[in-house]
Amino acid sequence: MTTKSPAGTRAPGSPPPGTSASGSRASGPPARRAADATAGEVLAGYLHAQATEFLRSLRSHGESGADAEDATEAARLLRRSARRLSGALHVYRPLTDTAWTDQLRSELVWLSETLALEHAYAARLARLRGALHRLSGAGVGEAEPGTAVVAPRGESGAAARARAAEEGAGGGLTVGAARAGALLERRLTLARTRAHSAALQALGSSRFHAVADNVAVLASEVPLDPAAHDLLAREALSHFVDQAHRRLADAVEGLPLSVAGHPYNAEALAHGLAATPTADAPPAEGRQDAPWHQVRRLVRLRRYGQEVLDEQEQVEVEPTLSVRLLGASQALDRHRDAAEAAAAAAAAARTPRIAPATAYALGVLHADQRHDVEAARFAFGRLWQRLAVTTP
Amino acid sequence: MTTKSPAGTRAPGSPPPGTSASGSRASGPPARRAADATAGEVLAGYLHAQATEFLRSLRSHGESGADAEDATEAARLLRRSARRLSGALHVYRPLTDTAWTDQLRSELVWLSETLALEHAYAARLARLRGALHRLSGAGVGEAEPGTAVVAPRGESGAAARARAAEEGAGGGLTVGAARAGALLERRLTLARTRAHSAALQALGSSRFHAVADNVAVLASEVPLDPAAHDLLAREALSHFVDQAHRRLADAVEGLPLSVAGHPYNAEALAHGLAATPTADAPPAEGRQDAPWHQVRRLVRLRRYGQEVLDEQEQVEVEPTLSVRLLGASQALDRHRDAAEAAAAAAAAARTPRIAPATAYALGVLHADQRHDVEAARFAFGRLWQRLAVTTP
Repeated sequence: MTTKSPAGTRAPGSPPPGTSASGSRASGPPARRAADATAGEVLAGYLHAQATEFLRSLRSHGESGADAEDATEAARLLRRSARRLSGALHVYRPLTDTAWTDQLRSELVWLSETLALEHAYAARLARLRGALHRLSGAGVGEAEPGTAVVAPRGESGAAARARAAEEGAGGGLTVGAARAGALLERRLTLARTRAHSAALQALGSSRFHAVADNVAVLASEVPLDPAAHDLLAREALSHFVDQAHRRLADAVEGLPLSVAGHPYNAEALAHGLAATPTADAPPAEGRQDAPWHQVRRLVRLRRYGQEVLDEQEQVEVEPTLSVRLLGASQALDRHRDAAEAAAAAAAAARTPRIAPATAYALGVLHADQRHDVEAARFAFGRLWQRLAVTTP
Repeated sequence: MTTKSPAGTRAPGSPPPGTSASGSRASGPPARRAADATAGEVLAGYLHAQATEFLRSLRSHGESGADAEDATEAARLLRRSARRLSGALHVYRPLTDTAWTDQLRSELVWLSETLALEHAYAARLARLRGALHRLSGAGVGEAEPGTAVVAPRGESGAAARARAAEEGAGGGLTVGAARAGALLERRLTLARTRAHSAALQALGSSRFHAVADNVAVLASEVPLDPAAHDLLAREALSHFVDQAHRRLADAVEGLPLSVAGHPYNAEALAHGLAATPTADAPPAEGRQDAPWHQVRRLVRLRRYGQEVLDEQEQVEVEPTLSVRLLGASQALDRHRDAAEAAAAAAAAARTPRIAPATAYALGVLHADQRHDVEAARFAFGRLWQRLAVTTP
């Protein structure tokens, strides 16, 4: 298996000199929950725990063998720790040995993005399949995702399901909806298979092994800036979380929240029939969504920053705040998922020589998902109002 | 011009005997605004005023000649009076000579429905054209409805506009949106032209002349039940308005207002891809919309009933209530208009041999209009809450 190594500028793997000078105090589980815990101790404790999780998930993934469910779960946990590690390294960057951690952080981002794709395509297909059934007035329970359908004459499973649906045996899908579903299934299953191969290839690459080696370093001793051990945790950590909150609040300031807060503003579909995107001109919907996606990333950083604070106290410092941050995060996840599902429906409609009924169903589906984009913005707007109250 | 006469069971035109016995007191403008005005006097005053309006609009329509704008306005006013006459005759039915008024009332309903169609098709096309432009990210101002486009080579105006749009000169419509627009324009213009002929034919029919004769009777002396002149207006009229309100409230009770009050409930599009309607099975969306359409009619009756009360006092008895009733009426008008526009987009998509891009645009358009249906339900739900407060 060949390895796509990065442009050769990075050589992670060896901890920089000088880290062990202070690292010895930071290793191991968080020892103290005292008012005089240092920022270095608390941050190192969090990173240590996440790195340990990362390595455990990696081991599970290696041991999962042919069990696809176990492998999927292990990959999910691997992404989860990778996101938290890179998030914490981002929010508390000045407390770390940045020459070493910046490199690891960008590698962790590469890793979680690579691993996330397979899951994203599977989730997108499930979302679109559910929507097609909902829009057909059929119960979602009748969608039978993943059910094996006997496929005679070399028919693919998707084609057999589409045929069964056309014949009225598939839960009342119309011809157009069934064909749209089959087309989306073909496209997204292909994309998912490619993403699966890419993920396996990534996990076998020397680039990945270098990441794993560096995470192992975090699991034993965290390369921190020496000053991190002179700062009181409760002051220094709060300072960086406040900074992350300000970046988030500034980005939210730029969102059209007053429009989004008005239900049924029809804004998310305002470019539903705009010109097909070209290389020079990205899709108008993508331009409209980008600032929301950026806020989604900033909410996540804010959450992971909060988790480090909570680690210090060994309880959630502000449970209400954590719940609201999670809610905001979920609303923006839904925003992204719906936006990407809408784009997938629009892209499928550009397949040459599809039947008008298929194209019509994809048009309805696109609009439906864009309305879910709008609904997610509305939900986020409400959650943000409450968050703004929680954090004066 | 041949006249489609009704099944021969109705012979309106001659006022029943006995009406003039009490009718002489009811004729002319409302004479008294006293606490002792009778129900008969007040109702007759209202009917007299509306009947006079009807006859005036009819004269304007006859005199409008080739001026389409004047004719349209006269037809609108004619429908307006016809709706109010039949509405008041409905709400205050027991106060009238029902043997005579029931017949007139059903003929007025026939007339206003016949006259309303032409306007409805024109409004539907304007709504869909506006939506296509909005969905294309083009300003509605660029839609240029009604603008004459030079059409060489015998091209229709619609085709020329579609071509101009494809060439990028029409405000940024994509090929699919432009073709969908042209298809809808062809279909709805044809329907409008037919409705126009039908309306002209109706206005020239002996059936219509019989209606006009009977309205002329209302304008001179209103056939009331003799008892109406023994009842005090402020008691009797309120009683019938309360009855109309109860019928409305009961019908609203049957609406899924708790779902509709939750923004983005995605209910209105729940059958967006359901099976094509057949003769035995009406469209699922139509079944879902029917109780809302019924409430729309009951709100209108409630409003016209209120207008008679206001006539009694010669001011709006409860201005807030009237404003809220009007708002509720408008929300349900929007509900009906959006539902019918969505159905028109779906019907156009069933045209044989359309391009996939056209079908896709019609799918987006259908879903967009169904979301406007949902938005109208949400708006009505809020207005109704306030109405329930106004009327304990």
